[in-house]
Amino acid sequence: MKYKIIGGVSLPNIPWEDKPEDCNEVLWRSKNNPVIPRNLIPCANSIFNSAVVAFQDGFAGVFRIDDKRREMRIHSGISKDGLAWEINNDPIEFITADGRKKKIFGYDPRVCFMEGKYYVSFCNCEDGPTVGLAYTTDFKDFYEIGNAFLPFNRNGVLFPRKINKKYAMLSRPSDNGHTPFGNIFYSESPDLEHWGHHHEVMRTTRGWQALKIGAGPVPIETEEGWLLIYHGVLLSCNGYVYSAGVAILDTDKPWIVKYRASEYIISPQIEYECIGDVQNVVFPCAALCDADTGRIALYYGGADTVTCIAYTTVDDLVQFTKDHTEK
Amino acid sequence: MKYKIIGGVSLPNIPWEDKPEDCNEVLWRSKNNPVIPRNLIPCANSIFNSAVVAFQDGFAGVFRIDDKRREMRIHSGISKDGLAWEINNDPIEFITADGRKKKIFGYDPRVCFMEGKYYVSFCNCEDGPTVGLAYTTDFKDFYEIGNAFLPFNRNGVLFPRKINKKYAMLSRPSDNGHTPFGNIFYSESPDLEHWGHHHEVMRTTRGWQALKIGAGPVPIETEEGWLLIYHGVLLSCNGYVYSAGVAILDTDKPWIVKYRASEYIISPQIEYECIGDVQNVVFPCAALCDADTGRIALYYGGADTVTCIAYTTVDDLVQFTKDHTEK
Amino acid sequence: MKYKIIGGVSLPNIPWEDKPEDCNEVLWRSKNNPVIPRNLIPCANSIFNSAVVAFQDGFAGVFRIDDKRREMRIHSGISKDGLAWEINNDPIEFITADGRKKKIFGYDPRVCFMEGKYYVSFCNCEDGPTVGLAYTTDFKDFYEIGNAFLPFNRNGVLFPRKINKKYAMLSRPSDNGHTPFGNIFYSESPDLEHWGHHHEVMRTTRGWQALKIGAGPVPIETEEGWLLIYHGVLLSCNGYVYSAGVAILDTDKPWIVKYRASEYIISPQIEYECIGDVQNVVFPCAALCDADTGRIALYYGGADTVTCIAYTTVDDLVQFTKDHTEK
Amino acid sequence: MKYKIIGGVSLPNIPWEDKPEDCNEVLWRSKNNPVIPRNLIPCANSIFNSAVVAFQDGFAGVFRIDDKRREMRIHSGISKDGLAWEINNDPIEFITADGRKKKIFGYDPRVCFMEGKYYVSFCNCEDGPTVGLAYTTDFKDFYEIGNAFLPFNRNGVLFPRKINKKYAMLSRPSDNGHTPFGNIFYSESPDLEHWGHHHEVMRTTRGWQALKIGAGPVPIETEEGWLLIYHGVLLSCNGYVYSAGVAILDTDKPWIVKYRASEYIISPQIEYECIGDVQNVVFPCAALCDADTGRIALYYGGADTVTCIAYTTVDDLVQFTKDHTEK
Amino acid sequence: MKYKIIGGVSLPNIPWEDKPEDCNEVLWRSKNNPVIPRNLIPCANSIFNSAVVAFQDGFAGVFRIDDKRREMRIHSGISKDGLAWEINNDPIEFITADGRKKKIFGYDPRVCFMEGKYYVSFCNCEDGPTVGLAYTTDFKDFYEIGNAFLPFNRNGVLFPRKINKKYAMLSRPSDNGHTPFGNIFYSESPDLEHWGHHHEVMRTTRGWQALKIGAGPVPIETEEGWLLIYHGVLLSCNGYVYSAGVAILDTDKPWIVKYRASEYIISPQIEYECIGDVQNVVFPCAALCDADTGRIALYYGGADTVTCIAYTTVDDLVQFTKDHTEK
Amino acid sequence: MKYKIIGGVSLPNIPWEDKPEDCNEVLWRSKNNPVIPRNLIPCANSIFNSAVVAFQDGFAGVFRIDDKRREMRIHSGISKDGLAWEINNDPIEFITADGRKKKIFGYDPRVCFMEGKYYVSFCNCEDGPTVGLAYTTDFKDFYEIGNAFLPFNRNGVLFPRKINKKYAMLSRPSDNGHTPFGNIFYSESPDLEHWGHHHEVMRTTRGWQALKIGAGPVPIETEEGWLLIYHGVLLSCNGYVYSAGVAILDTDKPWIVKYRASEYIISPQIEYECIGDVQNVVFPCAALCDADTGRIALYYGGADTVTCIAYTTVDDLVQFTKDHTEK
Repeated sequence: MKYKIIGGVSLPNIPWEDKPEDCNEVLWRSKNNPVIPRNLIPCANSIFNSAVVAFQDGFAGVFRIDDKRREMRIHSGISKDGLAWEINNDPIEFITADGRKKKIFGYDPRVCFMEGKYYVSFCNCEDGPTVGLAYTTDFKDFYEIGNAFLPFNRNGVLFPRKINKKYAMLSRPSDNGHTPFGNIFYSESPDLEHWGHHHEVMRTTRGWQALKIGAGPVPIETEEGWLLIYHGVLLSCNGYVYSAGVAILDTDKPWIVKYRASEYIISPQIEYECIGDVQNVVFPCAALCDADTGRIALYYGGADTVTCIAYTTVDDLVQFTKDHTEK
Repeated sequence: MKYKIIGGVSLPNIPWEDKPEDCNEVLWRSKNNPVIPRNLIPCANSIFNSAVVAFQDGFAGVFRIDDKRREMRIHSGISKDGLAWEINNDPIEFITADGRKKKIFGYDPRVCFMEGKYYVSFCNCEDGPTVGLAYTTDFKDFYEIGNAFLPFNRNGVLFPRKINKKYAMLSRPSDNGHTPFGNIFYSESPDLEHWGHHHEVMRTTRGWQALKIGAGPVPIETEEGWLLIYHGVLLSCNGYVYSAGVAILDTDKPWIVKYRASEYIISPQIEYECIGDVQNVVFPCAALCDADTGRIALYYGGADTVTCIAYTTVDDLVQFTKDHTEK
Repeated sequence: MKYKIIGGVSLPNIPWEDKPEDCNEVLWRSKNNPVIPRNLIPCANSIFNSAVVAFQDGFAGVFRIDDKRREMRIHSGISKDGLAWEINNDPIEFITADGRKKKIFGYDPRVCFMEGKYYVSFCNCEDGPTVGLAYTTDFKDFYEIGNAFLPFNRNGVLFPRKINKKYAMLSRPSDNGHTPFGNIFYSESPDLEHWGHHHEVMRTTRGWQALKIGAGPVPIETEEGWLLIYHGVLLSCNGYVYSAGVAILDTDKPWIVKYRASEYIISPQIEYECIGDVQNVVFPCAALCDADTGRIALYYGGADTVTCIAYTTVDDLVQFTKDHTEK
Repeated sequence: MKYKIIGGVSLPNIPWEDKPEDCNEVLWRSKNNPVIPRNLIPCANSIFNSAVVAFQDGFAGVFRIDDKRREMRIHSGISKDGLAWEINNDPIEFITADGRKKKIFGYDPRVCFMEGKYYVSFCNCEDGPTVGLAYTTDFKDFYEIGNAFLPFNRNGVLFPRKINKKYAMLSRPSDNGHTPFGNIFYSESPDLEHWGHHHEVMRTTRGWQALKIGAGPVPIETEEGWLLIYHGVLLSCNGYVYSAGVAILDTDKPWIVKYRASEYIISPQIEYECIGDVQNVVFPCAALCDADTGRIALYYGGADTVTCIAYTTVDDLVQFTKDHTEK
Repeated sequence: MKYKIIGGVSLPNIPWEDKPEDCNEVLWRSKNNPVIPRNLIPCANSIFNSAVVAFQDGFAGVFRIDDKRREMRIHSGISKDGLAWEINNDPIEFITADGRKKKIFGYDPRVCFMEGKYYVSFCNCEDGPTVGLAYTTDFKDFYEIGNAFLPFNRNGVLFPRKINKKYAMLSRPSDNGHTPFGNIFYSESPDLEHWGHHHEVMRTTRGWQALKIGAGPVPIETEEGWLLIYHGVLLSCNGYVYSAGVAILDTDKPWIVKYRASEYIISPQIEYECIGDVQNVVFPCAALCDADTGRIALYYGGADTVTCIAYTTVDDLVQFTKDHTEK
Repeated sequence: MKYKIIGGVSLPNIPWEDKPEDCNEVLWRSKNNPVIPRNLIPCANSIFNSAVVAFQDGFAGVFRIDDKRREMRIHSGISKDGLAWEINNDPIEFITADGRKKKIFGYDPRVCFMEGKYYVSFCNCEDGPTVGLAYTTDFKDFYEIGNAFLPFNRNGVLFPRKINKKYAMLSRPSDNGHTPFGNIFYSESPDLEHWGHHHEVMRTTRGWQALKIGAGPVPIETEEGWLLIYHGVLLSCNGYVYSAGVAILDTDKPWIVKYRASEYIISPQIEYECIGDVQNVVFPCAALCDADTGRIALYYGGADTVTCIAYTTVDDLVQFTKDHTEK
């Protein structure tokens, strides 16, 4: 591997398909897409924008499921191979600080493993959408930490270790609707409860990322810096188009962008990305990465309806980012 | 049958397909969908949101057809089996009170058989969209009654008998555009010309029915009350999504909702519902019902382009409604 | 008098001020404006858009009062001279069909005397704004009749006698917000409960009446037809500007406009019309008319804050309307 | 005094005018309004929404001044009597953590005295509007602390002492424009740098406070709880109308509202409140309070143009709040 | 005079009032404002945004008059002293190329004297608003030249001589409504009929000129360059606020801005500028200038209702522009 | 041929497929659609809305290509048969008047052969979208002429010869966004640099062309007049739907419409027209025409993603236009 991964773990059983011969893209879609169909469990209208991590000798995940009322819920699930999933029929009931259990009206989770715990960040709609935090150690009991920020915020994504002795998170300040704007900010915290020292990291630019941007999976640490996959939105005359792109943030000062590709790495082009409850959406929320080979399995939501995988490697992605950074 | 139908008629030749073995839904789509393609007659750009009733020894219908100017017109047609249709090439010319003939710029018809006449309610755009009424006895001559309400109103649906000695109608007050809101109201009339005693029946709630709702087919009377299939709309960042749901209204005071399922019974998921002149639309306008078996053939528009059928039974639907009513 | 008034009554004590020598307008403002200040009674934030009629040997009225919560209420009051008013501190409690009393969240009332009763039409906000009806004989007990139309409607104004043996009303179909459109319609009823036979009467045109229009006081019957004072709205880059104009409707078919002045008769120009809770509003709701002299005292709201009077005569107004009708 | 003030100080020289005999309101305006004209210093287009505190043997303040470019700046000033002010011609240059000086593009300051320092909270527009914090001890040198929250937020108001051993602040999450919504939230901090434990305090209701609300002056602690004066906004068809109201928050859990008056205590009615750069605005930012007498001098902006004073007492205000709380 | 005027003429009878002692502004208002009241002629609702030039031994002008239908028309008038005006009761009838006469639905005229003719540029609404051109030699007969540009454009202002052997004009590309954006462009023409070689001159910046800008009077040529008075618009939460500012353009390449004051020179602050048909508008359309003394009488519309004058000198204005240009 | 083509050239190798037996439409799609896939060259996200002309013994074209940044660029290419294309990997670098080379941020080109040069008109976004002009003789070197109009304009289409001794162009004045309106105008020029004498040609009407319209390919001259294919847009509740229609303009006064079909000739119905970066778009930009047979190969963009062909003949199209013109 050309670009060394820092702090990663071996994932020999990571889902993988070799790059097709005729593929010139940096990312290639799984032939089995959508790997999770919209109706995998009976209550589901759709399963998408979901967060998957290595867990024990397999994988675990936290899933956005819209039920047949079209209400948004978060479910947990496990898998041996990252492809076939057993997802619980009931949404997660979070355990509050005073020991009660409660369901949360939330969506678009990410999961970050750190210091022995699996932290879940998600959009919590209880008092106006903002970033909620929780953790689990077994994907059975989930403990609520509380909201990191005031409303309105979305797409909160933790870094997988403390930076400068503080916990660190990316997020996208928003409004209380479909939010026709949005840049990525960086915040830090001594305790995961109080957040401050905010920095703006990246702004919208042009083209596929002209309207708003938001962090995707937990960043992957490399020698070059933090490898960040994020989504960008273009406003056509017929609505929002969600694509995904990539940037590399400075290791110690992640609010400094070292490289940022001007081209997307994936945009909605296949039927399961173009047709569904929301047309033309590619929305990545998790990236498994095998530290030995640099293989990446990127999980993303298609058309706000199904869950898909695309493959690449750390080397490919870092090189692509450097090559496509505009001066 | 568990839930008795009141006032229904035998329809031994109702279109029917048995429920597929692997289907867990309360409603299943016809394998022949779309049963009416967009271009069945030469002038048609699309044929959808259409109203079908039993007529003589077969069926008759009033159809929304957008012509190739994309103007909205109402045509009549007949069919032996409810599947293969002969639709007139020319739109209905309504006969006015003073004996003139006139075409009407209207859409989204419903047909209700009552007291020997087939009443047609539709959105009449002549002076701002509102509910127009007409009747026929032979599906050849259609007599204009006039507008039931002032603008702006849509989705007027008659009950198939007088209630409390008055004619009764559901409708959805609207605005003069694409109307980003809308609840269902009940009104009554001594003569089908003057309307009053208005009651609100149902409001938007959440999820698939968060933005607006409107009555679909003519309600089916059962021992449990009036079985009402209706459409609901969700606003995604890419526009409106039309699904369908079900409720049961009190027999004598239909403005009282006894049961209302929180889940949809059908949402746009198949290509002919997701792709077309308006993406992601399922819009039911008519339901044939065989009183002997309780079989229901639900006619609905797909993507504002084609006409489709889905099947269920009164027993299934009533049970589903009761089971999915939230306390 | 050149133009004979039909069905009018003698009002020798009508408020009156002679036309100032230097006035070239068809309407002249009272020197005592605003005749009702915003804080005449303790609870009032503002008193405006109010309806005044002759009653016994003096006058009575129904008033829009916004209280200091800025909630809209309807109060009644009496006056010896039409200028000094005793307005009740408490809003009207309407008596319902089943004998209960209830306050109504309503506004912009009109009062129409007919067949021994004083009918009140107003915007009733209980289930979405529409036209509510009630009546009184003594301005103490008010009996609710119910809503004439489905939502959304405003500015319902009754004619003072049956036309073609039916009760008749003008109204303006609306939306559920500030309604950036609106034309005047005519409807009739056998019983004041059921309404039908709707006709469009007048549309917006240009200039001061380009955005929307709505009927003002109860029409005055003359030999020339029904004399209708109405409001019109222009959209400036800083919001709505409400002026008032005049038209003459056909006696037997009031949906036919015989004359309609293209110029306004009054527009917001004086401080009490330009400054207040809503800037630049002149909104007439009532017109006293003395059948002996043709004198008219027009009551109108100023800046949605105070109540004002302007004077004219039937002769002046009819002549003005005819002279300023565009071919 | 009926309602005891907690933690207050004697202000024998507080500006004061006795309540006029004929005044029935809980608040009465100064006869000298506007006490600070729009052009008190040469660069000023307007001086309003300003924060005044007791300082040494007189008063000091931090003022929103829009210059003749209509750029928003914050200036400091001093006064012997709270009425005649010497305001610096140059905006405050804040001293940053690393000792640099910088001007800030900010507005709508509040000043809170606590632990020997005067803390300034304001809307900081540097990276999208949010709440900036700074402090001074002499109203000459102002030290920047940093932004409390991510964008978008406004109307940050500190409590004058730690609550539950944490610093406490009210704020109103916003969007990046004129923000047609907004509720008041409560947040706490161990160090004035990191903020968390957010609670929603108050939502918009109806009438004058139907569109959005935001905290005004630093709350006054009383035996009954925290006395909070806040602004509320109503959307008329001609724009926003800003009034002010009052509530009492729980002493130890200030996110619990004990009382909240449904009527406003002041709304724009006088020319200097109705006419100016933004019509119909009353916007309170500071309240001097004499602990000996309970006298309050409320400083508020008029029409986003001038600075005004209105008077009341703690007893009057607490009583009014309790009397006008709706059950 | 410090800054020499080029190509000017002596205007000894220019309206004039000396600067008040206590005035620190670069511009001072006439004590006789509004010099033209809204109702100077019978048909007028308002007279504003008007263009005045020296003519024979006095003055002539072209006036925007909104009649009592609130329709926009252009009238001509003459005056001995520039203060007392005789304005024609009838709007100008333009003589077309083929000799017909026609009224034009236009507004906001400017008049530019050049090569013996008085050229009138105005917003012509015939086919969507754009810049119409015409000329007169006697203010009686006006000859139509035609539209300079395609829709949508407004605020076309000619330079008073050819530049680089071409006619030259400033304008502001717009949309077809109230246009929430707008910058000033420069175009040239060999024949006043065909226009090309477009350059952008000035963009909106911040504060009072953040939303849109447009040229005001015909530019005044000085040794320093073209002195341009222009309007700028700020969007408050209650609408548009129109102020005026000043810039100096390069003599030979007028699309190059040499100086541009960041402060306005006048903003709506006086009642006749704040109250009227459109609140908070100061809109300059003409500037008389005496070449001997450098005195300037600036004519501007107040609140889209009346015509006002403010005074300054070329020296004052040039100096102000240079002093207030931001680096 | 029934309708003679004027000034056309022989194109024996024009792409062609005979009309399918079962086709009743005036236009039939190529079986090879999309003839240019979205990713024909490596940098391309999509290739659509492209302009093709006969060139030497084959064909040449100017193509709208959105790259993977979703930036809009214009590329050139050549083809032997009009089906298989060699498109340059790099966008055109235009040669400016002073000999520099520059890339242009432009889109939606048309190419018009006239007087030995191939003129390219396109939407140039450099200073706000407007119509840019350039020419080439070899499809290698492209010389910039400059912008024909001020912003905001789009869909500039040249006529293929001078009319009345002037160059002539159609265009659609626009705004700076997605422009929810738009009619077609005609302008003329002595030199292709200065434009004037503007006429409105066609307005939006109803149905598929109710929201906006714009010229498509270079008009084809026939004995009947100029045959114009143009696009029209309908606003559904889910966005814009682009169809294409046809009209015939007067030969000498092309701003006079002789015939105009009320029906569309093609609307988005096939998957490659309904699914893509912008759903439901058919957008024609070029029409090859063989003067010997009257065969037309119409090139159009599908779903803003791919390039397609549909076939017809001049005779068919002229006859269709005449037959479908509404009186």
